[in-house]
Amino acid sequence: MTKVAVLGAGSWGTALSLVLADNGHDVSLWTHRQEQAEIINSTHKNEKYLNVMIPKEIRAYHNLKDALQQVTVIVLVVPTKAIREVCKNLDAVLEQNVTIIHASKGIEPESLKRVSQMISEEMNGYKDKDIVVLSGPSHAEEVAQRQPTTVTVSSMNERNAQLAQDLFINKAFRVYTSTDIIGIELGGALKNIIALGAGISDGLGYGDNAKAALITRGLAEIARLGTSLGANPLTFLGLPGVGDLIVTCTSVHSRNWRAGNLLGKGNKLDDVLDQMGMVVEGVRTTKAAYQFAKKQNIEMPITLGIYEILFNDKEPKQVVEQLMNRNKREEMDDLARLLSSMYSQ
Amino acid sequence: MTKVAVLGAGSWGTALSLVLADNGHDVSLWTHRQEQAEIINSTHKNEKYLNVMIPKEIRAYHNLKDALQQVTVIVLVVPTKAIREVCKNLDAVLEQNVTIIHASKGIEPESLKRVSQMISEEMNGYKDKDIVVLSGPSHAEEVAQRQPTTVTVSSMNERNAQLAQDLFINKAFRVYTSTDIIGIELGGALKNIIALGAGISDGLGYGDNAKAALITRGLAEIARLGTSLGANPLTFLGLPGVGDLIVTCTSVHSRNWRAGNLLGKGNKLDDVLDQMGMVVEGVRTTKAAYQFAKKQNIEMPITLGIYEILFNDKEPKQVVEQLMNRNKREEMDDLARLLSSMYSQ
Repeated sequence: MTKVAVLGAGSWGTALSLVLADNGHDVSLWTHRQEQAEIINSTHKNEKYLNVMIPKEIRAYHNLKDALQQVTVIVLVVPTKAIREVCKNLDAVLEQNVTIIHASKGIEPESLKRVSQMISEEMNGYKDKDIVVLSGPSHAEEVAQRQPTTVTVSSMNERNAQLAQDLFINKAFRVYTSTDIIGIELGGALKNIIALGAGISDGLGYGDNAKAALITRGLAEIARLGTSLGANPLTFLGLPGVGDLIVTCTSVHSRNWRAGNLLGKGNKLDDVLDQMGMVVEGVRTTKAAYQFAKKQNIEMPITLGIYEILFNDKEPKQVVEQLMNRNKREEMDDLARLLSSMYSQ
Repeated sequence: MTKVAVLGAGSWGTALSLVLADNGHDVSLWTHRQEQAEIINSTHKNEKYLNVMIPKEIRAYHNLKDALQQVTVIVLVVPTKAIREVCKNLDAVLEQNVTIIHASKGIEPESLKRVSQMISEEMNGYKDKDIVVLSGPSHAEEVAQRQPTTVTVSSMNERNAQLAQDLFINKAFRVYTSTDIIGIELGGALKNIIALGAGISDGLGYGDNAKAALITRGLAEIARLGTSLGANPLTFLGLPGVGDLIVTCTSVHSRNWRAGNLLGKGNKLDDVLDQMGMVVEGVRTTKAAYQFAKKQNIEMPITLGIYEILFNDKEPKQVVEQLMNRNKREEMDDLARLLSSMYSQ
């Protein structure tokens, strides 16, 4: 039994707490909202985020120091934009040495830093090579129902990845390891851009043929940006790449898809975010990827188009039509071209 | 304007006829059922297969010789198991030289021949290198509604691929070219095995997380078999690979997915095929791939599992659980491993 603090009681943080509790670990679940902690402890529900009973053994906390008592592992599951603040607070109160695992899927605009990099920058004595990421095709709702799910954990520190695998693995929740943390973190973040696009396409009334083309080209776009940031392009072909992309782009559970869907139906971004009431990571990730692609001159037509819809009020229909009709006759298998140029000869 | 005969008036043959007619070509649509030809010519509908009006300019034929008058291009869209017979008949009555394009997605059990190979074996003077295949993520229903769709045409004879591209391309129907006909034909055929699996998983009540894992591993399995038959593995990452796989595994339009779904819900194969009333290519393709994988000792656990369900009455639930729990802790990104071993160094 390991004593673990899960920081962040949204749907994914709650679902991961359930997996840990199922495995017999002692779980404290921290939330920055006092009221939410009280509701979880009194009702054993977290209905705003997840429609499931929470075992009594999982105790919710609002006070961070209390949540951290004697834990040896911290699982960070807060929105990317809250990572630095939470880590600053953590650094101020944490007394013991812990292993840090995160499951946040975003990158930071301007700096384009990955979550593991942000964590290590804010926490004294923690190097990014020791941080672990957990990612993969995994809707929280299904994990909470103990539906079969596969994820990947990755760290440059293989012992830490192994520890994370041992902690989470069970019959329904399969955990694989990888050493390409750059690819895993970027795959998890960038797929949300494509999910927004898939939602927009569906919201406009386009069909599955158009969406499949968008996802395929999106995969190439993710791999292109990821590779330029040091990822192994092959990572994007596995569970945390194409697997996560598929699940996020084709499932009604996906909040990025749902946000895109509302945009495609003609709603404006501010209204959509109000309606969602949850963090839509893809919005900030689009901004981050757009800025980087522009600076580095990387071809990312889907990201560019979605950026224009989100931040420059461009008509979704016009953007999708432009994407469909660009490079009229050229072979479209950009990812194949990328891999081929990297690996052949 | 080109005079084209489309052979096969199922949903895909009918949809491709509409694309050709939209582009101003003179289209004759052949069917082996006299009654169907009469219905199409009198009602301009083909309701059993496609809910759309057929322009009067498309004329349906039951007599093959009549359908072929003065055509310079033949588009073959019959079930894979009818390819040899139709080609034999074609060879007997065809007088002029034509370009042959096919859009059938299957392979032949026992011989494991691709469709272009079967065609050339049955038709005097036609070499497989001159045949063109058209494939990609493309539900017929959406093509008939002029929804945006992308496909790839491929031939070892680049001039013929170009001709096919010119013939079909329009604003809604984007056509790209490729020279890897082996990869394109196999990708189109083998994805139907995975679609059966995705349908089975859904039919059993598993969620999107499980399906995404199955599709991701299925992609690796397709690439592994395809490569051993001479395909370029990178082809499987493009539209006719991962694109077609996504659309077939996640859309209610897909008849292979629907057949799998019924199997997952406990129906037996014969009843499912009766209920469908259309050809389910994935069933024969599973047999073909299974035989080949066994002979060549290629690891294809998904194909093997689906073969057991289809032909050995194995319980779907048991098969899916075995697939989820195999290789318990090993990294699962088989495709990455395959590509890496082929292309690195």
